Order: sequence, then C-alpha cells, then structure tokens
Amino acid sequence: MADQHRPAKPDITRTPARGKTGEWSTALTHIEPNVIEVRGYPLDELMGRLSFAESIYLLLRGEVPSASIGQLFGSVLVASLDHGVTPPSTLAALNVATSGAPLTDSVAAGVLGFGAQHGGDVARCLRFLSEGLALHREGASYEDAARQLVEPYTEQGATPPGIGHRIHTRDPRAVRLLQLAHELDLDAEHCHFLRIAERVTNELRPGDAERVSTNVDGAIAGVCGDLGFEPDVAAGLFIIARVPGLLAHVVEEQRRQPWMRVIDPGQHTYDGPSRRRLPDTRR
Amino acid sequence: MADQHRPAKPDITRTPARGKTGEWSTALTHIEPNVIEVRGYPLDELMGRLSFAESIYLLLRGEVPSASIGQLFGSVLVASLDHGVTPPSTLAALNVATSGAPLTDSVAAGVLGFGAQHGGDVARCLRFLSEGLALHREGASYEDAARQLVEPYTEQGATPPGIGHRIHTRDPRAVRLLQLAHELDLDAEHCHFLRIAERVTNELRPGDAERVSTNVDGAIAGVCGDLGFEPDVAAGLFIIARVPGLLAHVVEEQRRQPWMRVIDPGQHTYDGPSRRRLPDTRR
Amino acid sequence: MADQHRPAKPDITRTPARGKTGEWSTALTHIEPNVIEVRGYPLDELMGRLSFAESIYLLLRGEVPSASIGQLFGSVLVASLDHGVTPPSTLAALNVATSGAPLTDSVAAGVLGFGAQHGGDVARCLRFLSEGLALHREGASYEDAARQLVEPYTEQGATPPGIGHRIHTRDPRAVRLLQLAHELDLDAEHCHFLRIAERVTNELRPGDAERVSTNVDGAIAGVCGDLGFEPDVAAGLFIIARVPGLLAHVVEEQRRQPWMRVIDPGQHTYDGPSRRRLPDTRR
Amino acid sequence: MADQHRPAKPDITRTPARGKTGEWSTALTHIEPNVIEVRGYPLDELMGRLSFAESIYLLLRGEVPSASIGQLFGSVLVASLDHGVTPPSTLAALNVATSGAPLTDSVAAGVLGFGAQHGGDVARCLRFLSEGLALHREGASYEDAARQLVEPYTEQGATPPGIGHRIHTRDPRAVRLLQLAHELDLDAEHCHFLRIAERVTNELRPGDAERVSTNVDGAIAGVCGDLGFEPDVAAGLFIIARVPGLLAHVVEEQRRQPWMRVIDPGQHTYDGPSRRRLPDTRR
Repeated sequence: MADQHRPAKPDITRTPARGKTGEWSTALTHIEPNVIEVRGYPLDELMGRLSFAESIYLLLRGEVPSASIGQLFGSVLVASLDHGVTPPSTLAALNVATSGAPLTDSVAAGVLGFGAQHGGDVARCLRFLSEGLALHREGASYEDAARQLVEPYTEQGATPPGIGHRIHTRDPRAVRLLQLAHELDLDAEHCHFLRIAERVTNELRPGDAERVSTNVDGAIAGVCGDLGFEPDVAAGLFIIARVPGLLAHVVEEQRRQPWMRVIDPGQHTYDGPSRRRLPDTRR
Repeated sequence: MADQHRPAKPDITRTPARGKTGEWSTALTHIEPNVIEVRGYPLDELMGRLSFAESIYLLLRGEVPSASIGQLFGSVLVASLDHGVTPPSTLAALNVATSGAPLTDSVAAGVLGFGAQHGGDVARCLRFLSEGLALHREGASYEDAARQLVEPYTEQGATPPGIGHRIHTRDPRAVRLLQLAHELDLDAEHCHFLRIAERVTNELRPGDAERVSTNVDGAIAGVCGDLGFEPDVAAGLFIIARVPGLLAHVVEEQRRQPWMRVIDPGQHTYDGPSRRRLPDTRR
Repeated sequence: MADQHRPAKPDITRTPARGKTGEWSTALTHIEPNVIEVRGYPLDELMGRLSFAESIYLLLRGEVPSASIGQLFGSVLVASLDHGVTPPSTLAALNVATSGAPLTDSVAAGVLGFGAQHGGDVARCLRFLSEGLALHREGASYEDAARQLVEPYTEQGATPPGIGHRIHTRDPRAVRLLQLAHELDLDAEHCHFLRIAERVTNELRPGDAERVSTNVDGAIAGVCGDLGFEPDVAAGLFIIARVPGLLAHVVEEQRRQPWMRVIDPGQHTYDGPSRRRLPDTRR
Repeated sequence: MADQHRPAKPDITRTPARGKTGEWSTALTHIEPNVIEVRGYPLDELMGRLSFAESIYLLLRGEVPSASIGQLFGSVLVASLDHGVTPPSTLAALNVATSGAPLTDSVAAGVLGFGAQHGGDVARCLRFLSEGLALHREGASYEDAARQLVEPYTEQGATPPGIGHRIHTRDPRAVRLLQLAHELDLDAEHCHFLRIAERVTNELRPGDAERVSTNVDGAIAGVCGDLGFEPDVAAGLFIIARVPGLLAHVVEEQRRQPWMRVIDPGQHTYDGPSRRRLPDTRR
C-alpha cells in the first residue's frame, strides 16, 4: 500500500470544549474600579517609568526587562516599523482605505495581510534555529547541523527561512540588529547558529548564484530566540511593530488620494525628505 | 415643508478617481535595494538610538520628537496597553482565537472591535475640545464655552466624550497622563479646557448624580491636542497601543484554554501576580 | 458668534450598557440538541424546499417570501455576484491571499473593502429615495422633489447616490433588475422616483456632460425600497452577494499565482471563456 | 540521532514572486464598459434565469449546474445559513457590533471566526474521505480503509472530522442533506464512505460511549466530494452560507441592544416565533 496515503497522526493536542461555558482565568491584567494592574504593576505607575517597548515586554513575558534587554527589544520593534508601500499588507490596507472605510478596517485588513509568506519567516526561522540547536545538543557540530537543515532548501533552489530577501541582498536592519545584540552582550546560540546557517547556505548554493544574507525576519528570530521568546510570540512582534506603519500609510492615503482609485504599486514615487542623519544628541 | 426633510448638503470633499490607475506618491518611507529610509532617516540608524515610541512619532509626524515629547508620547501609548478581558475588542479576539484561527486573524478581529463607542472617544473628545477652543477664540470665556458645549449632553443624562467611564469613577491613567504632561511642561490649552469641561459637567449634572471625571480617552485627547495631533491620528494611537494587549490575550487563550469554548466574560477571574511595585532603579 | 461652531446635537440614541452583563434575547434562530429552527422553521425542512435566496430573505425579514419576491430578491443577489479584479475589495482580498494567508482572512479583508464609497451607495440611495418620497407625501410633485434633492449634487459636478458609474455608462445589471421588478409587478414608488431622479439629474447636468444612468446600487436601492428593506440591510445584501465573488478570486489567486507578488491591477487580462449564452432550457 | 529532529521536507510548491509586478490573468469575470460577463455569460442574462445558488456554482466551477445539482448545491448553502448566537464567529461579530463598528467590520470579524476548529471540518473531512477512497482504490475494502483511518482518532478518545457535534447527537441538517443527495441520485462514493466511517467510528468507540453521527460539516464534505469540489472550496462554501447569518445577528444587535454591553452567551433566550411548518405550496 502506497506510503503517501498513510494518514498523518491526527493533531489532538487541545480538546474542544464542546459548547460549555464555565469559569476561566487570565494572568495578564487585573481590573477593578479605579485599578488597572498589568502583571501586578499598576498601569499608571508604568507610565513615565517604563518605555512603551518595555511595557510590551512586561505584558508578553510577565517581568520587567533589564535595561539592555529593553533596549534590544525596542530595536526589534523599530526594525519592522515600516517597509514602504509594496508589501501586500500595506496594499491591502490602502485598498480598503480607498473604498472609504474607517481607519480600523484598513489597519485590520493590513494585519490580515501578514500571511504565512509575509512576516511568517520569523516563526519559521526560529523553529529552524531550534531544530539546529537540538541537533547540536544531540552531538552534531553546528556546521553539520546547519548543513543537514539547509540542504533540503538549497536542493530545491530555495533558501532557509530568515535568509534572503525579495529586495535586499544585505538587509541593513538585520545587520544592525545582530550588531546591537552583540554590543549589548545578548547574543547567544540562536544568533550563533544563524550566522553559521547563512554561511552554509551560500556554500551550498551554486557557484554562480547571487550571495544571500540574513534578512530582518531571520535576525529577529535569532535575537528573540536568545531572549527566550516562543516562535508564535516572536512572529506576533511583527504585528505590533508594523501596525504603526499601516496606520501611517492609511492616514496618508486618506489625506492625499482620491476615493476609489485603482492602486498600481508600480507607479508610486517617494516625495518625502531626502536622506538625513539623526543629530548627535540622540545617544 | 417640514424642516427635517431638507437634505443635508452632500459631502463631496474628495472626488472619486473613477477607476483610473496613475502615478502617486508617498512621503513616508523610501525603499531601494539595501536602503530603508523612514522620513529620510535610515531605519537601521534609528534602531538603538530612538525608542519604539519615538520612532512611531517620527513616522506619524515627520520629525524626531524632543526627549520630553518622546516621553509623554510613550506614556500615551502605555496608558492604552491593555484593559483586561471585558472590552468587546478583546472578547472579539478571544472568540476568533477559540475557533482555531491564526494569531493575525484574532488580532485583526480585535482591531475591528475598536468601534465608534470603544476608543472612538479620543477623536470625539479632541473635536469637542477644538470646538471649545474655537468658541473661546471668538470671545467666549472658557467657562461659557464649556457650558455651551456640555449642556446638550447633560440635558440628556449623558456626559461629553472623554468624561466618565463604564468602570472607573477616577481613571488612574487619565490622572497620571495629565500629571505627566504638566510635569513635562507640555500641557496647554486643550488640557486646560478639558479640566474646565470636567468641572462644568459635574456642575450641570443633577445634585444626586455620581461625580464623573476625565477618562483615559479624554486625557489622551487633551495631551494629543496640545501635541498637535489631528483627531483621527490621535484615535489611531489607541490601535497601536492596544494591539500588544490583544496579542497577549490571544496567546494566553491559545496556551490555556480548550478550543471552541463558549466564552462567558462574567465568569473570569484573575490568577496572575498580586500587586507589586516597580523597583526604585526604574527612573 | 459664528454659526459653524454651534455644536451638533449629540447623537445619544442608544445608551451604553456601562459594562454590565445580563439577559438578552434573539428572535432569529432557536437551537436545542438536534433542533435548529430559523424564524420558527426547522432548518432541515427549508433544505430542498426554499432556495438559498429565499432562505436568506426569511432569515433577514422573518417571513417566507412569495415566489415572485423570492425570484426578484435572488436577482438582487445575482446582480452583485462579481465585478472582476479591479474593485478595491477584490484587490484587498488578493493582496492578503498573495501573502499566504488563509481563505477566511482574504475574504474578510475583501469585506472590509466594502467601504462607504464601495457598495455604500445602496444605503445612501435608499435614504435619498425615502427623502424624495417624504417630500412628495408633504405635497411636492415627484419632479419638484427630485429637483430639490438632485441640485445640491449637480451644482458640485457630482451625481446623486445610485446614479452614474466609474466604468459603465449604462449599467446592464440596473437595467435588467428594474425590468424584472416591473415584469414581476413588484416595482412601486421607490423605483418610480428613481427613474425621475435619473431624468432630472441629466437635465440638471451641463449640456455637454456625458449622460449618466442608474447604476446597480441605485437599482438595488429602488427594488429593496419597494420590498420594504431598511437601508442598512439593503446595503448588507451587497456583502452577502459579493462574498462568493471574493472567494472565487482568492481561490484563483491561490491556484494560479506565485506568493508575494506585487499586484498591478492595470496589467491583468481575461483568459476565460468568451461570450456565450444560457441554453434555452434555463427558464 | 533522534528521529523527531529530522526536519520536514520544506514546502516549496509555489515560488515567491520576489517583488516583481507583471502581467497576470483571470478567468472569472470579464469587464468592459457596459459589459459584465461571468465565466462568459452576461451577468444580466443570469439574473432571473439562474438562482443565486446556481450563479455561485457557475462562478466557482465554471459551468452552469444541472437542475438537480443546482438544487442540491442550494441545500448545501441553506444547511449552513445560521446556528444561533453561540458559535464563536457569531460572538465575535456581536462583540464588534456592540463597539459601534459598521456592519462590514462586524461581518468580517465573524468571517475571521471561521477558524480551523469551526467550519474547518468540511475541508478536513473531505481530505479524510479522499484518503479512504485512495486506500480503497489501492485494494483495501471500504471497511478496512475506514478502520485504518478512524482508529488514530478513537484511540485518543476523539472522532474523525465530520463525525460528532458539540451540541447535536443527530444533526438534522446532515440527515436531510444526505437524504436529498440520495433522492436526487447525486450521492456516490464519498457519501458511501462517510456512512461506513460513521458506523466504524461507533464500533471503535468504547461500549459505554454516547453514539456519534455525521454532522453538517461531514455531510457537506461527502456531498461536495461527490460533486467534485476541492476541499478548500468546499470549506469556502461555509463562509458564503453563513455570512447572511452573521449579518442577521449583527442587524439584530444594532436594533435591540445597548452599546458596549458585555455579551454573556449563557444568558440569552430565544423570543422569536415558535415552531411552524412551511405551507404545502412550497414544493
């Protein structure tokens, strides 16, 4: 009997509740009249004392980050802030906006555009790194582990998740994020294995192929892996980080464009400020 | 002929594009291979030098905020981070999550739950404050302007937008945000008129009515008005700020609850850490 | 004091529930084990005896439609089934689909693309027609009522809701729907006033302007008005009718296109069957 | 080296487009001024001659269905029209509606609530049936094929997709749909294998377990399988069919309930018409 018809073991890890209501608990935020406590901390006490990024970290992880973790985590969020008008999420948001829909609708449609192929590489790359580290713990060298994991991709002319980008050959966000993690002494084995996987990928690609490097999703996966984030939460950080970008594009659409236009992404130009540098007073 | 049938002047402020594609521009982010510039600043240069909140401000407003504006703006975002499981947006997100949908779907549904009655008070209150300031510029005292604007609400047993809360009689986020604005010397006429409107509202309510005070939406409207935000963008800040909260609730649902449960908001309890204080080292 | 600052009377038609849960009722569908009754009818009894369109009518209106109303109502839904790839709703759905998101996400994003400028004309036109009929009941001739309502639009170079289309000068769906209503003896004063408004619009437009005619939204508004639908429900019919179109486009995208493509609506061509006619055996 | 760390073969079935725009085609609907052709048929010609269900079938499958297929297909859609207020999709829609959001937002949130555990059984069951029929074609008896596929579920105390329901022990929609398929002579091997799988499931369950039967998702999977639908399109029919239900609930929420209520599904009652029967004149 052909092997391909042997059914996969059914995934029954969570039982359905079968229609019953009942008591349930949350460990995130406690509300009572005139009291709002996030993970035990009064929300009004966080205001002015924790940054927005640190507060997000506290909410997601349960504890206040150290100053250096807070800074690195903030950089993870800044890295994904915006990527112009061509990502499908931004185009989905703009198309909803041109139909005259409210801001919330446009942003929500943009969030829906974070499909498995767009932002999903954070989770896939973090699982890929975890697989590599598991192989290493079982005795393989990092090099061999990387080779074993990368080959199935390069054999098909593809690259592993987190390596290679549709536009950038050297993603400046990835370079900067990995550098920051290193400077803050927060990079560990995930970032280490990621660098090896990047090198192995290029070794395994045909001699005439264009060099590929770690993209922003890969760098976020490496950094978040070393910070102890689980893959789905790390992927969720992309949603948090890009929502401001979606909002900015939708507001710009509402201010500058006519209703019901047919949006051709190939016909856009940039007319904002030309390149400038931060003042030296900014750290 | 009855007055109520006289048609409103049609709202034709933006012309439909009538199905034509064409060139268009964006002033937000410039992309070319290996370059990502937000408002002219290389994104990788922002990483580690601007906070996430400051970067959002730059993206939305076009300029890097001063340190004090950056801090106040960050507090606006922290103020709306989460409000437990009972807001309809959170319940919408949880219901989508229990159906087995991905994280993005659940968060998007939550964003859709920021309807006009939930978060919408930021925009409505900011317009209310602008109306009051316009009346003042035309010669009315702040007091008279407030009285003129508040009365139509109190006459119907209601409160103006930004004043009163479904749970809190004294919203700790509003108190703290207005205090911060004052400490940072960033409160101006919007915050001033808001305080007067709160007092007038209580004067105009029946003697036996419960005292109402400025809620978080009102405080955000006041602060954002004084920072020069337009009402729709100020309202959009609520989306940015609450998405992390939605994400945290959805992840918790996926970790702790069975699939397809019937979610009864009245039966939840909080089982997280009890009240604690930030260490003194946090500023 | 300037009139423009006099605040609009606040819209306080529904009171907020102020955070209380409580008993509530639904009159749509009764569920108990092994029983599903829609508006009192066992759902399994409807199957095979009512058409899908008739069942929708029953659910929305509370009663089984007559055969002729059922047929006309079905035609309203067929009229909005699909309109190719250029509506913003379809483009929003396609952009979400190309990101690798599930079918539900893509369809939901498409639904969000039914903003006030896209499909919203059904509700606006139905309110416009109701205003005209109210003026008539107060003594104005249909002609005068139409002139009074249309002028504010034509004065600004615009057309009233339901008249004119971004692509079609003579919308074949509108023509057919109004003809069907007439043949089935179901057209009444809303359709009548719509015809007059179309004529008056063209009379009031400049002599050299292109002739405009009733579009599909206008025809649906006229027919639904005469069938007794309220404006928001009539507008909702567009959602019901177009979801199959969104689904078909998303499935086609998943089958035929690569992931993460940048969708340029101006570069699409049609490669399906060329024009053909229904067999005579179809009624 | 442990087998569980051997990476799955990467799924690279569709190549990413790597950021390029380009020509593309659609075979669904051809649009030119005053012409709308769905699958080659003028849309206005379909109106009044094809039912809404038949038109949907044409759009999705490319050809006009026979009268009997049209009737069965319509019944598939009617079967999923509504299921009261407790499905998570309906609760998501109601929570968005109570926040004051527009109809489109509420319906879109409901669509997002059709997660893998809610409606997803149609696709899973259809794949399950196809696996069984593949085993049969390779030589196994239907009985053995069913036993082989069902056992991994019953061993874990679960049931295969399409069998068992959180509320109904004998789902009246499933019974009626399979009966209709039989009466119309449209049931074939998928429906046949489904019946065997149901029997085998009950044989393999512990002697004291409650009897389970085919649910509406299972019956739709069987019928759609025999009609030649692919799993994802069959699952998409649930979206099409339930959107009217979502709309009806949202409209009812807007008409009958206060804003910002905390919706407790356990506290609802039904106050619509009591049980009634269709008149004999309806077929």
